[in-house]
Amino acid sequence: MAYLTSDPGVSLDGFIAGPDQTLEHPLGIGGEALHRWMFEEPEQHAAEMDAITSAGAYIMGRNMFGAGRGEWDLDWKGWWGDDPPYHGPVFVLTHHERQPVEMQGGTTFHFVTGGPEEALRLATDAAGDRTISIAGGASTINQFLRAGHIDELRLHVAPIVLGSGEAIFTDLKGLPLEVASTRSTSLVAHLTLKRVRG
Amino acid sequence: MAYLTSDPGVSLDGFIAGPDQTLEHPLGIGGEALHRWMFEEPEQHAAEMDAITSAGAYIMGRNMFGAGRGEWDLDWKGWWGDDPPYHGPVFVLTHHERQPVEMQGGTTFHFVTGGPEEALRLATDAAGDRTISIAGGASTINQFLRAGHIDELRLHVAPIVLGSGEAIFTDLKGLPLEVASTRSTSLVAHLTLKRVRG
Repeated sequence: MAYLTSDPGVSLDGFIAGPDQTLEHPLGIGGEALHRWMFEEPEQHAAEMDAITSAGAYIMGRNMFGAGRGEWDLDWKGWWGDDPPYHGPVFVLTHHERQPVEMQGGTTFHFVTGGPEEALRLATDAAGDRTISIAGGASTINQFLRAGHIDELRLHVAPIVLGSGEAIFTDLKGLPLEVASTRSTSLVAHLTLKRVRG
Repeated sequence: MAYLTSDPGVSLDGFIAGPDQTLEHPLGIGGEALHRWMFEEPEQHAAEMDAITSAGAYIMGRNMFGAGRGEWDLDWKGWWGDDPPYHGPVFVLTHHERQPVEMQGGTTFHFVTGGPEEALRLATDAAGDRTISIAGGASTINQFLRAGHIDELRLHVAPIVLGSGEAIFTDLKGLPLEVASTRSTSLVAHLTLKRVRG
């Protein structure tokens, strides 16, 4: 079975995005501060960034792929420009069918209407020996955590309080985890948790 | 000015106690699991436990001192038995006057009716050169964080999800913090944050 990881950037109060997500503020009000470590100290976090981008396949919710809802605007090809950072297959959960979109650099967006289990099956086939990353957003990560699918949850905790927004750990009381490791700079605490298999 | 610390044990979803706190379950349902590291691995956390107990004075809310409300039951002398782990002056915030209660081992509970600022003034006088620890509960810690008084917030993050309970970081959006250090075993991630002074 595939090994599943997830790498949410999270505030001290448990939000992976601030409130009022829009086209202008895809991470919500204040949410950009979650990722200061990536942009201001990339050398110091090379290992964590390599780990994020080393998956053989990615799964994300439609909310993470774009701000649109309902029928597709076929001009929308994600937030990430012509060469997204995934460099591999990305399975986007949606209720609306769409043909795959091939981008530069090896990223292809596949649109899955059969739900998380179908996305997981497709991602497992695509990933081969490599890991599968649950890219986000919060509701997709929570859904895969709830189903017991995520083996390694790598929280990147920014020392900020957002106050509201998209929360992880919703309806996950009793989730069996242990701490695997921690590492930090002033801008982030990398906190790796592993699922305890009973 | 005194240096203020606080050492909450906290769940991944930001609760320092579970729901339904009672005499039988002072930490609420499931809350005891926050402190497994203290009881199961004391040797591995000697430095953190020394830091917690090295303060020159402590401040706590009445909710942390006992389950009672309203007028005092003078037989109640805290949760901690005859020799509480504080070994110094503890200032308890309350709306009801009460004479100090001297315990074994150097702990004396003083009851402060003049609010947090009076407690801080009294604790500062009592602590001398040593630090002051804001012992809890959540609302007292949040109140001192909100007032900008806490210099060092040492979160002891247990890898558990409580789902509900007493939350820290309430109404603290924008709190200026940076990560100072992290350290972990499988049962806890010690995450030390320092206040950024602007």
